[in-house]
Amino acid sequence: MQFTAKQISEFINGTIEGDADAKVEELSKIESGQAGSLCFLSNPKYENYLYSTNASVVIVGQDFVPSEPVKSTLIKVADPYSAFSVLLEKYNEVNQMNTQSGIEQPCFIHPSVKMGSNVFIAAFSYIAENVVIGDNTKVMAQVYIGPDSKIGNNCVFFPGVKIYNKSLIGDRVMIHSNTVIGSDGFGFAPQKDGTYSKIAQIGNVVVEDDVEIGSNTSIDRATMGSTFIRKGVKLDNLIQIAHNVDVGEHSVVAAQTGISGSTKLGEKSVIGGQVGIAGHLSLAKGTQIGAQAGINFNTSEENKQWHGSPAQPLRDWMRASVIFKQLPAVEKRIAFLESTIKQLKALIDQNSTINNNER
Amino acid sequence: MQFTAKQISEFINGTIEGDADAKVEELSKIESGQAGSLCFLSNPKYENYLYSTNASVVIVGQDFVPSEPVKSTLIKVADPYSAFSVLLEKYNEVNQMNTQSGIEQPCFIHPSVKMGSNVFIAAFSYIAENVVIGDNTKVMAQVYIGPDSKIGNNCVFFPGVKIYNKSLIGDRVMIHSNTVIGSDGFGFAPQKDGTYSKIAQIGNVVVEDDVEIGSNTSIDRATMGSTFIRKGVKLDNLIQIAHNVDVGEHSVVAAQTGISGSTKLGEKSVIGGQVGIAGHLSLAKGTQIGAQAGINFNTSEENKQWHGSPAQPLRDWMRASVIFKQLPAVEKRIAFLESTIKQLKALIDQNSTINNNER
Amino acid sequence: MQFTAKQISEFINGTIEGDADAKVEELSKIESGQAGSLCFLSNPKYENYLYSTNASVVIVGQDFVPSEPVKSTLIKVADPYSAFSVLLEKYNEVNQMNTQSGIEQPCFIHPSVKMGSNVFIAAFSYIAENVVIGDNTKVMAQVYIGPDSKIGNNCVFFPGVKIYNKSLIGDRVMIHSNTVIGSDGFGFAPQKDGTYSKIAQIGNVVVEDDVEIGSNTSIDRATMGSTFIRKGVKLDNLIQIAHNVDVGEHSVVAAQTGISGSTKLGEKSVIGGQVGIAGHLSLAKGTQIGAQAGINFNTSEENKQWHGSPAQPLRDWMRASVIFKQLPAVEKRIAFLESTIKQLKALIDQNSTINNNER
Repeated sequence: MQFTAKQISEFINGTIEGDADAKVEELSKIESGQAGSLCFLSNPKYENYLYSTNASVVIVGQDFVPSEPVKSTLIKVADPYSAFSVLLEKYNEVNQMNTQSGIEQPCFIHPSVKMGSNVFIAAFSYIAENVVIGDNTKVMAQVYIGPDSKIGNNCVFFPGVKIYNKSLIGDRVMIHSNTVIGSDGFGFAPQKDGTYSKIAQIGNVVVEDDVEIGSNTSIDRATMGSTFIRKGVKLDNLIQIAHNVDVGEHSVVAAQTGISGSTKLGEKSVIGGQVGIAGHLSLAKGTQIGAQAGINFNTSEENKQWHGSPAQPLRDWMRASVIFKQLPAVEKRIAFLESTIKQLKALIDQNSTINNNER
Repeated sequence: MQFTAKQISEFINGTIEGDADAKVEELSKIESGQAGSLCFLSNPKYENYLYSTNASVVIVGQDFVPSEPVKSTLIKVADPYSAFSVLLEKYNEVNQMNTQSGIEQPCFIHPSVKMGSNVFIAAFSYIAENVVIGDNTKVMAQVYIGPDSKIGNNCVFFPGVKIYNKSLIGDRVMIHSNTVIGSDGFGFAPQKDGTYSKIAQIGNVVVEDDVEIGSNTSIDRATMGSTFIRKGVKLDNLIQIAHNVDVGEHSVVAAQTGISGSTKLGEKSVIGGQVGIAGHLSLAKGTQIGAQAGINFNTSEENKQWHGSPAQPLRDWMRASVIFKQLPAVEKRIAFLESTIKQLKALIDQNSTINNNER
Repeated sequence: MQFTAKQISEFINGTIEGDADAKVEELSKIESGQAGSLCFLSNPKYENYLYSTNASVVIVGQDFVPSEPVKSTLIKVADPYSAFSVLLEKYNEVNQMNTQSGIEQPCFIHPSVKMGSNVFIAAFSYIAENVVIGDNTKVMAQVYIGPDSKIGNNCVFFPGVKIYNKSLIGDRVMIHSNTVIGSDGFGFAPQKDGTYSKIAQIGNVVVEDDVEIGSNTSIDRATMGSTFIRKGVKLDNLIQIAHNVDVGEHSVVAAQTGISGSTKLGEKSVIGGQVGIAGHLSLAKGTQIGAQAGINFNTSEENKQWHGSPAQPLRDWMRASVIFKQLPAVEKRIAFLESTIKQLKALIDQNSTINNNER
């Protein structure tokens, strides 16, 4: 789709300098802007690019005055970054599959399934018995939704998502490809002969409103009760959420992190990548955990930062890590102390002998 | 499905106190029991819940005497936890898809495929040339089973499982969604010009009887020969098993752990989450490795616990970790020693000078 | 398929000792060779197996002289390992699905899709609007290729691969099962009330020629611009590549490693398993990073080895790690120094008192 500078400017409430008929059809970074590109300049660091870019239109701040000639049409707005974000969102809406609706064939929809209005089900998706799907939800290709699951309004499930039976998914939930919701928790009772007996996992997974989940992530169902992904949570790719975990509202978890069984994460937590959190813990609200940390204790202090494995408060960990790197030098200092003390001892013994002799 | 307290009691060989006709239709935790719930009380810590729960039926120990009035019907048994486990299993059997059989359409089954009795193949699954599938095996939606693979009896493959060609899967194997069995091992021969040439991976994967594998796990085929997942092994989600690995019988591996090429894990190993095990190693029977550890040496002592990266015996690692956290204080102690020694040296020199002068 | 020793020998330019009509139909390791097996002996360590193997044919070095009687037919070549690799490749070509072509039903191919010659699309695959697929490319079952993606020649996509819209995939790219290309980058702008607002991810993923990607790996699309997997790169299983990352040509990355947003990896990098690389970094050409390391700084020195978390140069890390394990002993040495110094101090004070008294 093509838009003119004038159309864009009206949409974001800006003023035009240059050709109001300049046409754009894609968004890009200012450093790679070409004819037909719409860019924005917010960070003064990138101002130089403005004078060399071939972008047709650039959004700049209200007060921006170019120090060199500019080929592009400028649109001046109060906040270029926000204005661009608004456009990005619009662009995404138009550009993505989110506008599709209807049922593609072949797909498998059990006769008992209840669907709202404007739902899209792509080919090769499988919607099992008693599933309920809300309005405007888009189920892309090769998705599986198991029996008795309930899906809210305005969700997007990307191709290959698998949702086991009895899952409850809220409104505006986006789940990326090949993520699995509701696989069995990892529960096995050790037997006397050293083998294991499976503990049935009869709970489910509850994903509340406004959650986004990345690709290839696994969220296990509860043994009994529910595994909770609370309102507004954002999970990245390749994350492991074990049975009965409760991820607090508006928490953010980066890729490849694992949270063990029955652990409760306080709301607004910020968890880095490749973090490991042990089971049966309770972490305070606003807890922040640095990448690759390992935490195996409860925390009660809010908004505290933890690093390292085993985890420590940020400052302590930084200090300890600095000295870890100096350990070879530290060891040399100790060895030097040892030899110095040996010498001193000898000297003292000598002095002492002298004294004794003299007395 | 609904059951009466009487039916349940007979099934688990208990005795009833209260209304034998009380009806239950779901299992739940005692703290969240509602009308229609069947719960159990095993841990005395939870006894309080018994007096407030709305659960219709609660299973308790033979000798249990309530200290307050109880609304629920009680079923007394020798071991409430075991009795409940038996019910869980029954519940799961009835409740899950495991009872389905037949071939859903559309699915792709090569004419050469041989299937036992009572097999279930769900829609959008793909069963390739020369595959053999045993009795009672359930293949859920969107599963792929590659050419020449042989699948045993009573297996369950959840939606999206991908099994490459020539895989051998035993009896009673459960594989969760989007797990991949038999992808190529990661083998590339470095060339003189710095590029890599693929080493063909012509082996397969053998999964023995009674194995359970979580979701989004990857098990690579052997370069030649087989990658083995031995009898009774339990693998969690998002695990990496490289080519030619051999995971010993009745071992348990937690989520996000990676085992590198050609490593052999002894039987009854217990491996924590996010563990890394280097290639071409042999680890002794009963080896236990703590979460996030990294192990890059062979072990011969059985049933030994390892922690840390690089791994150490548990006690050594705990001691070293405690001191790691104290490193800033340790460094201060050394600095203090250094300044003290300087002073002492000065003192000794002084004394020595005095002595010399006096002599 | 069956071949005679004579046919094999001609193909790899060898000379035969023994029965030129010996028939083989599978490749195997010499220690597990059986009637019908073709093996090779390159490493002298395995020579013993030659005298007991039942393999029909064994490839050996030109100058090899058996010290005991051999049942198998020998084919002598200049370099047995290379000869075998050539055969492996041939075997793979013949044996794999790579020879299939045509369109299996049911599959979903949008009428706007353009395909080259000799393409294979397996059942349940979904090829969306405006996709272009080159010659000889094989798309196996249950694959998804999103709108406006362009796929080169001679690619192989294993079952369950999901490729989001606008991805560009080069020639001879192999992608293993359930890997996801082009899922949204993990970008969320924190709001004043502690919630997060999604930042639209409108870029794409570019995978250049001769790349191989393992199973269950996630490669996110760029926020704007492209995430790049350059020419000849080899990625293992369960890897996380965040938005706007650029993995340099002919780099190799082992399983479960994560590379955070906007980081640029120099060409010919070698990255171990479970490594974490922070965002917005630039790492020098030929950088080597050991398993489980964590790196959070730029590097400029080429071909340098890094280990540990936080990462250090290899030798420094090894030394520090050795002392880490000795920390309990180190602490004891310090405690001993402290008590020794206390004693010395007392002695000196005493001496000094004696001196003073004597004066």
